[in-house]
Amino acid sequence: MVDILHKVGIKSASPDAAYRALTTVDGLAGWWTSDTRGDGKVGGVLQFRFGTGGFDMRVLELGSGKRVRWQVIDGPAEWLGTTIGFEIRQDGDWTVVFFKHQGWQEPVDFMHHCSTRWVVFLLSLKALLETGAGAPWPNEIKLDSWE
Amino acid sequence: MVDILHKVGIKSASPDAAYRALTTVDGLAGWWTSDTRGDGKVGGVLQFRFGTGGFDMRVLELGSGKRVRWQVIDGPAEWLGTTIGFEIRQDGDWTVVFFKHQGWQEPVDFMHHCSTRWVVFLLSLKALLETGAGAPWPNEIKLDSWE
Repeated sequence: MVDILHKVGIKSASPDAAYRALTTVDGLAGWWTSDTRGDGKVGGVLQFRFGTGGFDMRVLELGSGKRVRWQVIDGPAEWLGTTIGFEIRQDGDWTVVFFKHQGWQEPVDFMHHCSTRWVVFLLSLKALLETGAGAPWPNEIKLDSWE
Repeated sequence: MVDILHKVGIKSASPDAAYRALTTVDGLAGWWTSDTRGDGKVGGVLQFRFGTGGFDMRVLELGSGKRVRWQVIDGPAEWLGTTIGFEIRQDGDWTVVFFKHQGWQEPVDFMHHCSTRWVVFLLSLKALLETGAGAPWPNEIKLDSWE
């Protein structure tokens, strides 16, 4: 099992906006994919679409404005059963988001791709919260011919 | 042991410029840190500085315009003994760089930070090769208060 691990800081005195951006359909649509639908409550299913493909996530856990965890229930084979977690820590003037996409079976080429692509979207989250404008799909930075 | 894995594509019909950017002092200074010194040949030591801190890398391997591998011989404790590798594959109009920073002992907070920060610099490499201008230290995107 191999994991994708990241950390991004957002210049913000309060973690509340980050938590909203990670737990509401409107928030998620502002930085990951503009085509986000579903139910962000515990037990609900969120649907993230990127044109023809995408992911369905079941919300496993929401923790007091600080933790979010999803399980992938539909999407590419390599993602099925993996979990995605966000942990928010406030550090003075910074809201710091720790990100984990855990449970990959093998470190395949697609995992390398997704690890880099998560940062593209985490930088979009940072931009959304610092400037009011993220770059969710279809306006994100394109990494290569796989997109 | 845990690894940082990434992949970034550069719109380019030839891998030669990417190989130069990963193996020469001038090339590395164009996307990672403007304060790069040393000897990029096999057995040589490259010194990367970011103000007060930095890394020394011994060049372990250079492979026919396609592979680069370094070992960290000086720097933060978590980096000592880890290896960093780049593999270049040409895919039509794209030069694709697979990146591996391998051999971390534990998935510490600092590893999350470095994984994200590598993408900031790999996007700088992409910009250097696609536009002629990278964003090496001290002009890179700042992620948080650790920088």
